Amino acid sequence: MNLLLKNIAKHVTLTPEDEGRVLFLTEPQTFKAKTILLKQADVCTQSYFVIKGILRSYTIDENGVEHVVSFACPEWWIADMYSYLSQRPGQLFIEVIEDAEVIVLTKENQEKLYSEVPKTERFFRILIENSLIANQKRLINNLTFTAEARYDIFTKKFHSILPYLPQKQIASYIGVTPEFFSRMKAKLLKK
Amino acid sequence: MNLLLKNIAKHVTLTPEDEGRVLFLTEPQTFKAKTILLKQADVCTQSYFVIKGILRSYTIDENGVEHVVSFACPEWWIADMYSYLSQRPGQLFIEVIEDAEVIVLTKENQEKLYSEVPKTERFFRILIENSLIANQKRLINNLTFTAEARYDIFTKKFHSILPYLPQKQIASYIGVTPEFFSRMKAKLLKK
Repeated sequence: MNLLLKNIAKHVTLTPEDEGRVLFLTEPQTFKAKTILLKQADVCTQSYFVIKGILRSYTIDENGVEHVVSFACPEWWIADMYSYLSQRPGQLFIEVIEDAEVIVLTKENQEKLYSEVPKTERFFRILIENSLIANQKRLINNLTFTAEARYDIFTKKFHSILPYLPQKQIASYIGVTPEFFSRMKAKLLKK
Repeated sequence: MNLLLKNIAKHVTLTPEDEGRVLFLTEPQTFKAKTILLKQADVCTQSYFVIKGILRSYTIDENGVEHVVSFACPEWWIADMYSYLSQRPGQLFIEVIEDAEVIVLTKENQEKLYSEVPKTERFFRILIENSLIANQKRLINNLTFTAEARYDIFTKKFHSILPYLPQKQIASYIGVTPEFFSRMKAKLLKK
């Protein structure tokens, strides 16, 4: 069964006709590693459901420093949610880290899905709730935990893709410099 | 007109019967400043729509240090979204800063609303989308902006309630110590 339909079936029950509409309104695509799917300041018009491979989103600040905002592995969605929902220029880049198969859902087709298959509204509400939960947790972790504790949380959450992630991107995600990250890992190994 | 119904009407159109159900399933309450509406590690069973006054959410880390996560002014909702949505013990306290009138919506009644007035599902999806957008922005701001720039964004966002907020809570929200915050404000005044 299509991985996207399986994902939807976890939350809402669709009829075969509904499923047909979902498949009609989404499009499988493959991308090579290092492909940039979205650039900072562009409007994000599509979201990606990952079937295979790894994607990440990041932003570049005024001083040219890159900050990783999220990683997406199979069965996760990725988009610049701010830009996707508001249809204003966004802050994020989206890049393929490992050769990827994704399912593309355009904003336009998502609106069609809402009206043609109203149950998908519930599905996307739950998805957005889950993103909000993850975001709130991350915000609180950044405020309250040490870098070591944040690294520990990170390794648990991204266990399956850890071997594929460059060290400097992990450092960026947990909010430390690559140098600090190397020293911290060396210290942890000695424990 | 009831401020909550007005707020809902910005996003979805309810019939008079629908509005009656909303009023029946929500409850106005008043709280004195310093009232604690939710404690860390409790399950958040209700969300609050602010009519008057100011509320805030915060967390306390392992070292006993308080971190302000959000402020809520009139026409904003506040809850520990992680706990409210998952019905697991949360990380946040919710406290009344200025005497408040709120409308309380319990998780149970929200589920009833979804089934009795399906249009409210769209309303809450939009609310949650907006929270997600705000959270993403805050996360990126914390990663990429200096404390001065974060303070500038803060004063614009919370312009109307600024005179009521203790300095140390503003410092905590933007992620600096009260001492650093005082020095920064003194420096900004000299500019």
